[in-house]
Amino acid sequence: MESITTSSYAVHFNQLAYDAINAHLRATPYSKIFVLVDENTKRDCLGNFKNMVSDSSDYEILEIPSGEVNKTIETCIRLWEELSERNADRKSLLINLGGGVITDLGGFVASTFKRGIAFINVPTTLLAMVDASVGGKTGVDLGALKNQVGVINQPEMVLVISEFLKTLDQRQLKSGFAEMLKHGLIRDSGYWEVLKSNSDFSDIDRLIYTSVKIKNEVVLQDPTEQHLRKILNFGHTLGHAVESYFLENESLETLLHGEAIAIGMILEGYLSKELTGLPEADLEDIKAVFLNRYPKTKFSEADIETILSLLKFDKKNSHGDINFVLLDKIGKPVIDVKIPPKLFRSAFAYYSEA
Amino acid sequence: MESITTSSYAVHFNQLAYDAINAHLRATPYSKIFVLVDENTKRDCLGNFKNMVSDSSDYEILEIPSGEVNKTIETCIRLWEELSERNADRKSLLINLGGGVITDLGGFVASTFKRGIAFINVPTTLLAMVDASVGGKTGVDLGALKNQVGVINQPEMVLVISEFLKTLDQRQLKSGFAEMLKHGLIRDSGYWEVLKSNSDFSDIDRLIYTSVKIKNEVVLQDPTEQHLRKILNFGHTLGHAVESYFLENESLETLLHGEAIAIGMILEGYLSKELTGLPEADLEDIKAVFLNRYPKTKFSEADIETILSLLKFDKKNSHGDINFVLLDKIGKPVIDVKIPPKLFRSAFAYYSEA
Repeated sequence: MESITTSSYAVHFNQLAYDAINAHLRATPYSKIFVLVDENTKRDCLGNFKNMVSDSSDYEILEIPSGEVNKTIETCIRLWEELSERNADRKSLLINLGGGVITDLGGFVASTFKRGIAFINVPTTLLAMVDASVGGKTGVDLGALKNQVGVINQPEMVLVISEFLKTLDQRQLKSGFAEMLKHGLIRDSGYWEVLKSNSDFSDIDRLIYTSVKIKNEVVLQDPTEQHLRKILNFGHTLGHAVESYFLENESLETLLHGEAIAIGMILEGYLSKELTGLPEADLEDIKAVFLNRYPKTKFSEADIETILSLLKFDKKNSHGDINFVLLDKIGKPVIDVKIPPKLFRSAFAYYSEA
Repeated sequence: MESITTSSYAVHFNQLAYDAINAHLRATPYSKIFVLVDENTKRDCLGNFKNMVSDSSDYEILEIPSGEVNKTIETCIRLWEELSERNADRKSLLINLGGGVITDLGGFVASTFKRGIAFINVPTTLLAMVDASVGGKTGVDLGALKNQVGVINQPEMVLVISEFLKTLDQRQLKSGFAEMLKHGLIRDSGYWEVLKSNSDFSDIDRLIYTSVKIKNEVVLQDPTEQHLRKILNFGHTLGHAVESYFLENESLETLLHGEAIAIGMILEGYLSKELTGLPEADLEDIKAVFLNRYPKTKFSEADIETILSLLKFDKKNSHGDINFVLLDKIGKPVIDVKIPPKLFRSAFAYYSEA
């Protein structure tokens, strides 16, 4: 599969990815190479990765515990200190081998260590392959606030190696698939139809490629999220608030990112029907697809109040307004829509009804 | 005094600075404006600043304790949280009103909050006016390691208001003057002569202007410090190690930055005489000027060992080598010089001898 070139780097696929990194390493005299992993990617991916990369025997391994709860500044402090102690310098390279936590956090650590060292992202989850692989967003959470601290900075390259998907369970694959369904909803109704009828992740390489291409087209036109790029936030404004709420409450089971934005897309689909003319049939289609694939969650009145109070911290807001991306129809987004507050409760009621 | 334009923003002086910020604020619809101060600039500078800026009555004040020991990630975490709680959003502005700690740390906090909000630097110390005002370096210390975490990012503008120098004592003024003397040593022997004969900070506006111009010329030619910009590090490789050592040892009185790099410039002057042909008379001139203006510090053998061990963490190093900027003669620097280790001890001996 041919490589996709972004504004400043390329996303390479499978065997071509290994060819690309080997050529890059031959051409670039890094002083030291570090690989950031968690316990899962250390066990399941690191060996295969090192086997395919030349001269990888003296890579130094940095390990952090897996999970969104560790995507914090405290984890960054540990890594900055460890890089210092191991004599990382400005000519060192950090390879981030893992899911979105590893690529977001590792990208931030690299972008800020000694005012920035080079990094390469090797996403190992479906979610990270189709989402974090393009756009240069790095960051960590601040308490319940997702990605509150970070920078926009580009990796040297991104390697999408679909073999790593074999290490994932169905729940994680489905979580990534939610972002792909979003790509259909905001950009390409034909792609939405293709994804809808795919229940076994067949032909996944081709689908990943389509999703990366869609995201890249959007980001290239608006790298700093002034207008078009906002469409990627469909389902995320309420979805992030739901995700933060579940993350903060230790008594609740954690929702995966895709599970949270699946809820967010139903909720924001409802708002779209009310405010931007999404046809009722499209809304029913969206609700059926997501409830068919993702577990339905119960929300009490108190849950909903707390989730709505988290909305005001969303990064996309300004001047006190909460801006939503809604749909005009499937494949056609509308940006910067303000929502009458009472509609939020109706949206949750719609989500919860049978 | 006319404004100096850098790659992406302008440094404005005195009354023109107020005109520039007022025009900028009229033209830019910020959602909220925050001013970062410490207890000194809150007391001595904030009132005057707000008096000169239109519609400044509803600015929100963020305060941190003064001093290099507070230039930490922990202080950043407090500020990120405070910005979140006070509903700062992506269209908010942060004005950094203070010395180098405020502008370095405030620039980093703004550059990373929600992946970057706008900031304006208003340096209030001589050191920050001539040094931090150009170049876009932001950052904080990591334990004893100065500026180990940060990014390169540009403010909207920099305002140099020399009236604020009246709030400084002689020791702080002298500290800033050391960076100006450095500008002469690395770029302009005539300017060095002018500064040498200035013992009362007369005509300081014109001297600040010259220093900002010199630094800007250097940074414009090499924003990412691949070659020419390294000359700004003269005196800083050993100077930073000395500064870190004094900062970490609570039993020692803290050295101001200028006092530490004054020592660093004598030490690196000595290395220049040994390695790059700096004439003996120039070295004696450098030593006399700095010892005449800055206190002479005693170093034990153990002090020197520890200081040298800190060298390896310097950001300018790569591949395990320690790279120095030395002088060929006054006004003519040489970059990327490697030092035989035994010369370090001779340099300290030269500094210490009568």
